[in-house]
Amino acid sequence: MKLIIAIVQDQDVVTLIDELTEKNFRVTKLSSTGGFLKSGNTTLLIGVENEKTQEVLKVIEYSCKTREITTSLLTMSMPGESYIPYPMQVKIGGATVFVVDVEQYIRV
Amino acid sequence: MKLIIAIVQDQDVVTLIDELTEKNFRVTKLSSTGGFLKSGNTTLLIGVENEKTQEVLKVIEYSCKTREITTSLLTMSMPGESYIPYPMQVKIGGATVFVVDVEQYIRV
Amino acid sequence: MKLIIAIVQDQDVVTLIDELTEKNFRVTKLSSTGGFLKSGNTTLLIGVENEKTQEVLKVIEYSCKTREITTSLLTMSMPGESYIPYPMQVKIGGATVFVVDVEQYIRV
Ligand code: NI
Ligand code: NI
Ligand code: NI
Repeated sequence: MKLIIAIVQDQDVVTLIDELTEKNFRVTKLSSTGGFLKSGNTTLLIGVENEKTQEVLKVIEYSCKTREITTSLLTMSMPGESYIPYPMQVKIGGATVFVVDVEQYIRV
Repeated sequence: MKLIIAIVQDQDVVTLIDELTEKNFRVTKLSSTGGFLKSGNTTLLIGVENEKTQEVLKVIEYSCKTREITTSLLTMSMPGESYIPYPMQVKIGGATVFVVDVEQYIRV
Repeated sequence: MKLIIAIVQDQDVVTLIDELTEKNFRVTKLSSTGGFLKSGNTTLLIGVENEKTQEVLKVIEYSCKTREITTSLLTMSMPGESYIPYPMQVKIGGATVFVVDVEQYIRV
């Protein structure tokens, strides 16, 4: 048994929990925040049989991988008080994952 | 030294912390929630000397074991707008527990 | 790679995260509370290369060590309804730290 501790960005949490639950992995969600100025994140605890560890890591990679998106939600101020949408590349997602050995596992 | 990570149902947290504290075990409580549609739970961190691990696991089992209770709080709607109490068996409790080896432990 | 799980008093969290971030360590903050009647604390997760473990532990010791302070914020009630400031030695700070081995570490 391994314990996977995954720190993921808030915007990927729903997708990731959905994907893991579909595959019958059990997930516990802890409230967490990054250090200063970092956007919100969530820490997930996932207990998993040794031989399924890589499968869980693949699901995390698939659901949370850092990717660039083009956003047009930002606006740029122009002289004369008009605003135009300003397309911009931003990076979202990303996860930090620790796999720890579990010496004993019980459910009561 | 071991670190016991116990995910327990909210309704058992007060009893469990009381029992562990009485026996001089130190408990840290993390806010946590289960995946979708699961009732509230709490994750506890318990640092323990190797030889006391099984004692803590027994306290967790005693305080959190899945059990059936008969509830009469539910009501059933009847024709004519009367309600009668409806006794029902429901399962409560349960805990998932991971024991992890601690390589180094310090208190400052 | 090691995972350092540090339970620190709330009043030391900002200083500790500042010190660790300055040294390029990455910190994740979990909401936590102690057992009954204990003041607020916070649990930090810090992933660290093996050879930097002792450096992180030194930063934690430096930022969180239990120390005595003299407070004059407390007041003592006197006959005739006057109050005088009452200097008092109180202990603050302190941390409990677990170092756990990480079998696999990925960032996606
Ligand atoms: Ni899906
Ligand atoms: Ni008791
Ligand atoms: Ni500094």
